[in-house]
Amino acid sequence: MQIPPGPLLQQIDSPEDLKKLSKEQLHQVCDELRQYIIDVVSVHGGHFAASLGVVELSVALHYVYNTPYDQLVWDVGHQAYGHKILTGRRESFLSNRKYKGLSGFPKRSESEYDTFGVGHSSTSISAALGMAMAARYKGEKDRKSVAVIGDGSMTAGMAFEAMNHAGVADSDVLIILNDNCMSIDPNVGALKEYLTDISTSPAYNKVRDEVWNLLGKLPVGKKFTRDMASKLEASFKGMVNKSSNLFEALNLRYFGPIDGHNITKLVDTLSDLRHIPGPKLLHIVTVKGKGYALAEKDQTKWHAPGLFDKITGEIYKKKFDVPQAPKYQDVFGHTMIELAEANEKVMGITPAMPSGSSLKFMMEKMPHRAFDVGICEQHAVTLSAGLATQGLRVFCNIYSSFMQRAFDQVVHDVAIQKLPVVFCLDRAGLVGEDGPTHHGAYDIPYFRCIPNMIISAPMNEQELRNLMYTAQLESTELPFVIRYPRGEGVMPEWRKPLEAVTIGKGRRLRTGKDVAILSFGHPGNFAAAAIRELKGEGIEPAHYDMRFAKPLDAELLHEALRSYDKIVTVEDGTVVGGFGAAVLEFMAEHGYKNDVRILGIPDRVVEHGTLKELHKECGYDAPAIAEAVRDLCRISVAAIIAQPEA
Amino acid sequence: MQIPPGPLLQQIDSPEDLKKLSKEQLHQVCDELRQYIIDVVSVHGGHFAASLGVVELSVALHYVYNTPYDQLVWDVGHQAYGHKILTGRRESFLSNRKYKGLSGFPKRSESEYDTFGVGHSSTSISAALGMAMAARYKGEKDRKSVAVIGDGSMTAGMAFEAMNHAGVADSDVLIILNDNCMSIDPNVGALKEYLTDISTSPAYNKVRDEVWNLLGKLPVGKKFTRDMASKLEASFKGMVNKSSNLFEALNLRYFGPIDGHNITKLVDTLSDLRHIPGPKLLHIVTVKGKGYALAEKDQTKWHAPGLFDKITGEIYKKKFDVPQAPKYQDVFGHTMIELAEANEKVMGITPAMPSGSSLKFMMEKMPHRAFDVGICEQHAVTLSAGLATQGLRVFCNIYSSFMQRAFDQVVHDVAIQKLPVVFCLDRAGLVGEDGPTHHGAYDIPYFRCIPNMIISAPMNEQELRNLMYTAQLESTELPFVIRYPRGEGVMPEWRKPLEAVTIGKGRRLRTGKDVAILSFGHPGNFAAAAIRELKGEGIEPAHYDMRFAKPLDAELLHEALRSYDKIVTVEDGTVVGGFGAAVLEFMAEHGYKNDVRILGIPDRVVEHGTLKELHKECGYDAPAIAEAVRDLCRISVAAIIAQPEA
Ligand SMILES: [Mg+2]
Ligand SMILES: [Mg+2]
Repeated sequence: MQIPPGPLLQQIDSPEDLKKLSKEQLHQVCDELRQYIIDVVSVHGGHFAASLGVVELSVALHYVYNTPYDQLVWDVGHQAYGHKILTGRRESFLSNRKYKGLSGFPKRSESEYDTFGVGHSSTSISAALGMAMAARYKGEKDRKSVAVIGDGSMTAGMAFEAMNHAGVADSDVLIILNDNCMSIDPNVGALKEYLTDISTSPAYNKVRDEVWNLLGKLPVGKKFTRDMASKLEASFKGMVNKSSNLFEALNLRYFGPIDGHNITKLVDTLSDLRHIPGPKLLHIVTVKGKGYALAEKDQTKWHAPGLFDKITGEIYKKKFDVPQAPKYQDVFGHTMIELAEANEKVMGITPAMPSGSSLKFMMEKMPHRAFDVGICEQHAVTLSAGLATQGLRVFCNIYSSFMQRAFDQVVHDVAIQKLPVVFCLDRAGLVGEDGPTHHGAYDIPYFRCIPNMIISAPMNEQELRNLMYTAQLESTELPFVIRYPRGEGVMPEWRKPLEAVTIGKGRRLRTGKDVAILSFGHPGNFAAAAIRELKGEGIEPAHYDMRFAKPLDAELLHEALRSYDKIVTVEDGTVVGGFGAAVLEFMAEHGYKNDVRILGIPDRVVEHGTLKELHKECGYDAPAIAEAVRDLCRISVAAIIAQPEA
Repeated sequence: MQIPPGPLLQQIDSPEDLKKLSKEQLHQVCDELRQYIIDVVSVHGGHFAASLGVVELSVALHYVYNTPYDQLVWDVGHQAYGHKILTGRRESFLSNRKYKGLSGFPKRSESEYDTFGVGHSSTSISAALGMAMAARYKGEKDRKSVAVIGDGSMTAGMAFEAMNHAGVADSDVLIILNDNCMSIDPNVGALKEYLTDISTSPAYNKVRDEVWNLLGKLPVGKKFTRDMASKLEASFKGMVNKSSNLFEALNLRYFGPIDGHNITKLVDTLSDLRHIPGPKLLHIVTVKGKGYALAEKDQTKWHAPGLFDKITGEIYKKKFDVPQAPKYQDVFGHTMIELAEANEKVMGITPAMPSGSSLKFMMEKMPHRAFDVGICEQHAVTLSAGLATQGLRVFCNIYSSFMQRAFDQVVHDVAIQKLPVVFCLDRAGLVGEDGPTHHGAYDIPYFRCIPNMIISAPMNEQELRNLMYTAQLESTELPFVIRYPRGEGVMPEWRKPLEAVTIGKGRRLRTGKDVAILSFGHPGNFAAAAIRELKGEGIEPAHYDMRFAKPLDAELLHEALRSYDKIVTVEDGTVVGGFGAAVLEFMAEHGYKNDVRILGIPDRVVEHGTLKELHKECGYDAPAIAEAVRDLCRISVAAIIAQPEA
């Protein structure tokens, strides 16, 4: 489908072209850029509201700064569509987030304007500071670095760590705080309140009001003039401004807050700032979804709405004649409420993903027992540990790839202390369009190496519910990981009664001959499909849903390894050190010599695409599993033919 | 050896006993407690200066708060000796940090007064907040939670994350900021400057001076009286105080700074604070090493000085007649300078461990190319990535167990982008007396699962140097991990010329028969000793120093697996998912069926002790390796006897 850009945008193939325009024309560029984003995202999908909020900022930055020599780092990066469109990717933007197409995030290999790959939050200040320090070291005095970071990203500790360093590093780095009071969900925490406070009524304003109030009561007369009072006020203004700001406490020069949708003001301010040396922060206030009324009104819904009718605002939903399986996320969300209603010790924690994880169901119904702590995975885990020391049963829901940020806290605060925190690892395995930064590829190995961990994965909705139920039982005395993928399960009728599972016990789903498939989690369904496919060919694999990668079901493994020469393992995680490796370790320990084929995410960076495309590419969708089984059997047959006497 | 406590301390077996004393007697308790710490640490070793700095705080907290019902969380915990001595562990403190003895850190399994196990920094606020939220949820209104955190720990992001939450959580948590301007080395960063600023001349003081200056110039007379001026000042004092503080910006009530060695003031202040609801922060100023003059003067040296003569202050050093092997740390430190002198792209980064890592050598010599960024592992890694985008060759030195805190940054900012950052993982493997929180047990699996990583370990000093040299070559285009243990290597004559190593190539050290030992890193020396031991018994294992856990040396592995039926792997890391597992994965891929025994850190929490004790306990010291080889050979012989026709 043809999506024509506006007449000015049409001419912009690089920031060079943008710079040829007059400042007055930038209004129109912003309008056209906004319109183009709406046009493309409505029919091709992707993140939406965040990029609309920084249209003016994107234009102003490329207008004022000498990109790519000056280095621009977008935090998280789902707001960088305008940046991409302005930097030579207007046409290719139609392939945004599609298999082999543009990444939905800045990416170094995609463009020299993408100075730093992003996806996770709060990395931008560290990266930009590194660039600024390098420029300083190399004597590139005219080279500037800019980090654009949201108020949500600012709550993660590493942003603070970077500011703590930037304040003393004597480098030319500009931090632009894009303050829209939002993460994906509304931003939370003391910092957010503080930012709102200084935006809507800066400390200076408060003080001034009180000063005037006080001075107004002073007897102005011949000796004490209004002019003197003004002088007094000016002095206090200076002092208060100097000392009142959180960022200035960290030795960053603070500018703002200014309206982030006033392109003229932005261009003027950035032009000034470009020449001010040292570390500094510009606070701009923007509206997420700016320019698309519905998005401004419901910013969470329009964060990444899927396809929609840009005129009516109708978000297209697939319609089905038969009941569909729910999302694992929603099963988690509803089951939390059931568990919490039955067990007063149950609590829920999410670091800034109430909607994505569906913990919001519980947060709405039980606001004192379920919390969003902001983009703070580290704190989320140790807070959960603190709650667990008091006997509470905390479900800490963190996406697999974001859990990477709290790895130490899981080791140090939970596992070593044997605290029975429940980690629900949402979006475990490949995640699809968000790509490499978001794939939950590594959690099986990175958790499996930690002592005391229980690591489970449900093959379907009922299993998820039963694992959740088991995790919060008094008899469960260790940290309990439940990993499940993004998206739909397989059970339209999912609300079955809750039943305890024996920890470390898997399920034999079917017996077979010669070959057994050992699956872990949802890909068990791919294995089941593969088995159906193979049936017609006379190949009959056994199938075990192992359920636990740690502790392994020794009994079931002995059975499988004794009964079947050939073993195929399937998991939605890296083939290095994961569930398949656990089976190999078990075999080495017990002297088994079976042939083993490990299927899962290969040991390389897997790019973005639909889940279907990626499962196929990675070789663990149903056809690939069937082919692996066939291949093993062929080798087996070949061996028999070669040694007919055996 | 008998170490008698003073007469008051003698009577204190729990905080109950402490509370029986009068406030006036607390001075003497502090003196005796301080003396007892000096007496014990001088002859038994351990952390020193930190505990001396919080003697008064420890006494005051247990005097005022109702511990253990009120919950006290010590950040890091190496300063908690006073706390341990006051809470029933006076006698057992003589076993501090010894095998099977007291832990050098608070530990839940050791005492009900140790509410939260610590060791890594900056977890205390999250944990204490969790406890406070639990108390609130349970309606325990009289129950208080206190976190004691140093100014160094405050620089780590997770402390900020926790404050961001605490400020809005409406729970009774008190944060005590123990500000001594130190981590192990002097604290760095903007926050430290800010704290010094508000301690030595609080913003209020500055403003007051200027106000008085200004008001002094005002024509005080009949109408504008000195009293009015005072009123004006009072009003400004209130306003400025309210708005000037970084912590108050985060909605924490700020108290202080007060002298942390004034026991009376501490007791009075804490007594007041105990009754003030909500989240609050008390800023106390202390001197690390307080009361031991030499420690006050050189706080880094006396952080953990080893054994010393408490009278003369002489720190005992072992004396040797022959040249000794250097510490790996010092080899790293000196080699950094050599590399940096030859290659202007080389930079060094440490998060708060300049002395421990020996990066300080380079920091002193090349202050613009080597940096301490504070206790900020996350920032350290992403900053390194930012520098690497500019073509610089950054050696980011982080202890293995602290690297756990930057796992996501390694995945997301370094590995996915294929940036050739060099990670020197100091203190990899078991670390000895610091125990479970500090063992570098997990880095092989947690790094091995990440694509693009090169993971190496030197068997000796020369290998370390050559790996470092190789890592910074232009031809090295991927992230490069070099893991090495705490302490001495094996080469007194270590300063050999630097030579490039082929990435992914190991070394065949000796051929043998039947069995091959594949070792990774320093434990190769244990393997060599085992082989010497076995020689007398007619057992002749081959020995391969594999050097790289990723990529594996396929050629060498094919050779070993084809030539020897029995394989023993040895590594200074967990047996789950580590180097041994990598060998198993290789075998599965290529259809090898050798018998494999994997030696390394077992899959459980390993407690503290000397390295020798722990290597023995974990079964990979020389005798244990020899025994594993014997055992494999016995099985082999048994199998031959059982099947003589084979
Ligand atoms: Mg935001
Ligand atoms: Mg300190």
